Order: sequence, then structure tokens, then C-alpha cells
Amino acid sequence: MKNGDFIKVKTSNTEYEGYLMPTINNDILVIKLENGYNIGIEKNKIKKTTVLKSHKESKSKKQKIKHNKNLPTISIIHTGGTIASEVDYRTGGVIARFTPEELLKMFPELNEIANINSVFLSNMFSEDMRFKHYSLIAKAIVKEIKKGVKGVIIGHGTDTMHYTAAALSFMLENLPVPVILVGAQRSSDRPSSDAAINLICAAEFITKSDFTGVAICMHESINDDNCVILPACKTRKLHTSRRDAFKPVNSGIIARINHKTKSMEFFYKYEKNKGLVKLFDKMEEKVALVKVHPNFMPEQFEFFRKNKYKGLIIEGTGLGQAPVGTPNQLTKIHSKNLKAIKNLVNSGCIVVMTSQCIFGRVQMHVYSNAIDLVNIGVIPGDDMLSETALVKLSWLIGNFGKKARDLVRENLRGEINKRIMPDQFL
Amino acid sequence: MKNGDFIKVKTSNTEYEGYLMPTINNDILVIKLENGYNIGIEKNKIKKTTVLKSHKESKSKKQKIKHNKNLPTISIIHTGGTIASEVDYRTGGVIARFTPEELLKMFPELNEIANINSVFLSNMFSEDMRFKHYSLIAKAIVKEIKKGVKGVIIGHGTDTMHYTAAALSFMLENLPVPVILVGAQRSSDRPSSDAAINLICAAEFITKSDFTGVAICMHESINDDNCVILPACKTRKLHTSRRDAFKPVNSGIIARINHKTKSMEFFYKYEKNKGLVKLFDKMEEKVALVKVHPNFMPEQFEFFRKNKYKGLIIEGTGLGQAPVGTPNQLTKIHSKNLKAIKNLVNSGCIVVMTSQCIFGRVQMHVYSNAIDLVNIGVIPGDDMLSETALVKLSWLIGNFGKKARDLVRENLRGEINKRIMPDQFL
Repeated sequence: MKNGDFIKVKTSNTEYEGYLMPTINNDILVIKLENGYNIGIEKNKIKKTTVLKSHKESKSKKQKIKHNKNLPTISIIHTGGTIASEVDYRTGGVIARFTPEELLKMFPELNEIANINSVFLSNMFSEDMRFKHYSLIAKAIVKEIKKGVKGVIIGHGTDTMHYTAAALSFMLENLPVPVILVGAQRSSDRPSSDAAINLICAAEFITKSDFTGVAICMHESINDDNCVILPACKTRKLHTSRRDAFKPVNSGIIARINHKTKSMEFFYKYEKNKGLVKLFDKMEEKVALVKVHPNFMPEQFEFFRKNKYKGLIIEGTGLGQAPVGTPNQLTKIHSKNLKAIKNLVNSGCIVVMTSQCIFGRVQMHVYSNAIDLVNIGVIPGDDMLSETALVKLSWLIGNFGKKARDLVRENLRGEINKRIMPDQFL
Repeated sequence: MKNGDFIKVKTSNTEYEGYLMPTINNDILVIKLENGYNIGIEKNKIKKTTVLKSHKESKSKKQKIKHNKNLPTISIIHTGGTIASEVDYRTGGVIARFTPEELLKMFPELNEIANINSVFLSNMFSEDMRFKHYSLIAKAIVKEIKKGVKGVIIGHGTDTMHYTAAALSFMLENLPVPVILVGAQRSSDRPSSDAAINLICAAEFITKSDFTGVAICMHESINDDNCVILPACKTRKLHTSRRDAFKPVNSGIIARINHKTKSMEFFYKYEKNKGLVKLFDKMEEKVALVKVHPNFMPEQFEFFRKNKYKGLIIEGTGLGQAPVGTPNQLTKIHSKNLKAIKNLVNSGCIVVMTSQCIFGRVQMHVYSNAIDLVNIGVIPGDDMLSETALVKLSWLIGNFGKKARDLVRENLRGEINKRIMPDQFL
């Protein structure tokens, strides 16, 4: 009996069938039930085990893809993530292992919507993405667009999909087609997987809308009815595991697609880009983000000056605050925080303030600590998400050098709402 | 005409009345209208200005507080924040300036609910709170409890109120009365201020419930009808400016109080604590939080080892991931991230993983990167908020030394839900 075997386990009370999983606890046998859940069974309570089907590593054949002249063409670029992953019975974890051809085999419905070009770029977990990967993806997108496709789907791990969406948004100016990032919160081998519906809705949206630009397509709720198209620079992963983890922040959805009826609602009117896409794919490596918190130490800011960082996002509290006030003995250290930030700014580092509240906007003219920060050169990030601000700052410095500072507060790709809602007024 | 004067401004079209505000733009005159909004008027369009009332710094007299034998007693400890702040006409910012007596003068309704002890502890913006302040507040609470009060209200700035709530929750074991933190998102001099309603609802809750423990009282929505009592370790500020900024995370509300009818709904049954409160008020100073992101550098982890940190919260992505996988050339640097974290753990630093998704729980047995992290000694933070995990870790190390490691995943004050919801299962 080896991991991955489909087995039957009999205890005095009941019977279970499932796949044998690895475990570090020798007293327990773990099996993955067919509904996707793992259960542990104490070995001393087991009466009998039977191997119903021996595990074999599946090797799929390459499928020949048929071209339909009546359908538009969509390119799917695979970067990795859960959307193309399955359980690894060796480690018990989940690994990415499907090639793009296997994707099509898994989701045959795609072939009824469009002709599919599939491009294998990488097979990464998205938490491993680095700024340089964004450039690789952007170049691959440009290559596909030049083939005249109706749109591009990027298969991506969900963990940092919103960072990538923002980065691609900045890198690809004047995009003439939709570029839709699609992830899955449950791996494709799970009955509850959202992979197929997200992919199919993204393809439907591409073929039926005149949207141009970068966006994300994921479940709207935990039900399998609607997917939503979310704005690239205004979306955040807000749940570790739910299928509707991606939510718009300080913004609304772009469209809703009903998976069953294929009906579509559009909520934003975009001006259609025409002409050629322009690629600005440089990113400055020395840009980071730091979330401040009670007891923050000046040395934590000094680190960035000593290591010659060119840009820093401070994810502050509330309206854009950091511990720099010195009202009493215990906070004497805060004058050193202010000085450390000042030294960092003076070293040429562009320092931008966002808020760990996530929703709302920073307003740095209200309280004295924030006013002090602005006076030493910290730039308010308005209502930008921290994640968007991070990639924007790296991108600005990478492509525009010293002009970057003046562009931080410019709304370039829908990342900043300049209009302040009455309720946001303080 | 000086800042703070109540003036009338006539232009060719219209007339405005309001308080003259400072501005750095000499071409514009800024006045604060009586509805709280500021408007700027171009000076070259102004026909006439009249001072209707000259600004005087208000100096309030100390009020003698009357004791009513039929009412319970509540102690209000003032630490600072917007709940006791007003506009400073000198700088145009908002400053904290009310003494506790002035608080009672502002909110006379409080005296009909309870006899009020008022304690002035500090007048800080909450972003300036350090771990040592938590000890000062906890000691002040114990002092009030020993007087036999029905409960304690802590007036607190909202920016880090959730960090303080968690810290007090850990410091004060077996609390026999409610300790309710109250903030305001709009300063008390604003017509839209939430200060009075939040304070009054907290006082009502204290006098009418048998809840014991630490909680937060804030607006439930942007309407002025209901306030909610929120769990100390499971609440987060999720909007920079809305009055309903505080939301429970992976948890529900404890109670709802209708401000107008004073009716109350209770949603959680707590076992009432009896006996004496125990104070554990030490905090380890060398504990920090770091939010990982694409392009994270090994030197950012190494910093914490070099500076001899005793505890670190890694706010990871998704289910508890960090960039430690090395699938290709570009991510070779990630093996150094893994090594840097390993060195940090081996130096004796307790490293705990939470998620920047905020909602949901980390599950570090699913993907290989997280499995690698657990194997080198990173502790999964379950469904703890990053902010709660930070103060818990500092508190654990401060009070329990080497035992701290074993207590990280123990649910001590409602900070961890051990039950995994089906929808959270992966």
C-alpha cells in the first residue's frame, strides 16, 4: 500500500474510501475522500484496509488542437499557480504540473468559445514572482497581441495576482485588447475547483466585450454562478481560501458574467485603445514596502537608507500616519523615526505613504504627525492600494528615473481616484 | 482678520460664512463651513470679507461632578485620539486638547447613565503607542477595577486601537468587568462626529450587560443608529475615514446597541469571570512584523537576525506563503530568503506566519513553499490577525520566556478559532 493508492478502510463502526496520503504521524492513516476532504483514522481502530486501485503517475498525451475559422483566437499564457495544479501524493501537498495542452484537455469548453493559443511561460507559485518576471510576462503578451488575437488570458497563482495585474497594467500602455488574469482558489482536481468557471468566464468576456486593458477574472461569491471582471490596480486578495477572495477596493467591478446563461453586465465605460501597444517593462529592483506598527524602531527605517533603496512604500496607519510624534518620555524614540525617514528621503529614496486600513484614502493634511511627514518629503499615496503603489513606484523609477517623483500621484492606469467621496472627507 | 475668526465672504455670485483656516496658497482663502467642510475661494473673486466673531481660545472651567447613588460607576481613562480632539485654527490640523472634565462637559448624557470617574493618562495619537504604553494603560485599568467600578472605558485614537485592544486582552487575565475601547473617526467638534454615540453606547453596554473582558465599541454602519461591541483580538480598522471602519475579522460582533432606543442584542455568550484580575504586563521590545511582497530581499530578513530580534511576524501571502521557492533562474535569490529565515529561527527568534489576505486562515501543509517554511521552524498563525499576532508574540516572550513558542498556537483570549469552517478547507 503506497501513497496515492485508492483504498478502502474498515473500522468497527464504518468504512471509508479515498486516496492514501502521506503523514508524519505514524499512529494515524490519512486518506483524501472523493469530496476533497482529508480525514485521519487512528490505526489501532482499523480492522482492514484494501487497495482498490494502485496509484500511477498519469502521463497525458499532447492533444492536437483543431482550428475553427468562425471563432476568435485567445492566447492563454501559463505562469503557474493553483489553476493548473493537483495533489502530489508523494508529499501530500499541491503541486503545479499541467502543461497548457493538459489545460485544454481539462477545460474542453474553452474550445467552443475561441481558438486557443497556449503558451507555457513558467510553472511558478505566485509568491515566488519577482519584478523581473513581470517583464517576461509583458513581453510574452506583446508577442501574442502581434499575432492579432482577440485577447490574452494569463493563468496565475492567486497569492500575488493583484501585484502582477497592476504591474502589467503599467508596463503595457495603450493595450488594444483585454488581458485577463485568471487564478483558482481550489486546485483543478478538487470537486469545488473554481478553475474552469473562471477561465471560461474570462474567455466569454474577451470574445463578447470591447474592453481594452488589464483586469482580473474570479468568482463573485462562493456560488458557482457569477464571475466578475475586476480592475487591475484596484483589486486585492482578501481571503486566504474562499473562491470569492478577490474584491475591488475603492472601486467597483468592470463586468459580471453569468457562467450558466453567459449573460453579461458592464459597469464601466472604457475608451477603447487603438493603435499599437507600447511596452515600458523596466522595474527598479531596490523598492520595498514596510508596514509600520506600534513599537516600530528607527533602525527599521535606517535599513533602507543603508541598503541604498530607491523607493519605499510606508504602509501607515489610518489616514497615513507613522509613529513620529513625541508627546512623552516613552515616545522619545519617535523623533529618531522621523529623522530616519528624513535621512532616507534626503538620500534620494522616494517615500510614499499608503494605509494599512486598505479601504479609504490617506489624507496627510489633517493630523500633525502626517503633516510633519509631508514636510520632510513623504508623498501621500491618495487611495492607492499598497500593493499597487509598490509596483507603480518600482516601475516609475525604472522607466522615468528622476521624473518618477512627479508621477507618483498622477492617475496613469486607474490606480488613483482623484474624486474624494463626501464620506471620505475629514 | 486672523485664523479661527468666524467670517462672511462675499463673491460676485454668492456668500459664505465660516471659520478662517490657515493655508499655504496665498491666492486662496480657505474657510471651514459650519457643516464641517472646507472650501477654498480665489482671493481675486472676493468682493468683501467681514469678521462676524473674533476667535478666542476657549478655556473651559473644571466642572464639579455630582455623584448619583442609584447609578453604577464607570471609569473613563483618556489616552488620546480623535475622540477628544478639535480643529487647531493655527495649523489647520486637528489636535487633541480636551481634559477628561471637558469630555463630560461635551457628553452630558453620560452622567445620566453612570457616575463617571475620569482619568487622564495621556493625550497621544494612537500611532505613537509603544508596547510600554500598553502596560501603563493596563495598570491604570487595574487601579480603577480595584475601586469596584462596573466597567472601564478607554478613550483611544482609532489608528492602532485594535492593537491596544489585543494587548490589553492578553495583559489582563480574568477581568471581572468590561473594558471597552472607544474611538471616534471624526473629531468631536464636527457635526458628523461619532464620538458621543460611541461613548454613550459603550456606557450603556457596560451598565446593561454581564460581559467581562476587553472589547471595542464603534459605529456599525455610517448611520447614527447602531453601535457594535467588537472582539478585542478579532477586529481591525478597515477604512481610513468611515465611521464604521472597525470590522470583526474571522469572527462576529459581541453585541449591538441601538443608540436611540437603547435596546441591545447579544450574540455571544461569555462565561463571566470571577475573582481578581491578574496582570501580566511585560512586553518584549524586540518583536516586529514584516509584510512580504514580490521582489522581497534576503537582507530584509537578515536585518532581524543581525539586530537580535526575539520575535517576528511574517505577514505572508495567501495561505501563509513567502518567496522561498526556486523554480527558475530569476528566483535563485529565494533560496537565500529561506536560508535567512532559517538562520533567524536558529538564532532563537520565534517566527510566526500570518496572512496579508486578512480574512481566512493560514494553512501551511498545502503548498511546498509553506511546508518548507514549517520544516525550518516557522509557526503557522492559524486565523490570527497580524496585528493581534504581533502583540501576542511580544507579550508571550515578555511574560513566559522560552515557553512562548509553545503558546503561540494556543487560543488564550479568543484570538484563534480552532474550528475550521468547511469553506476554509483546502
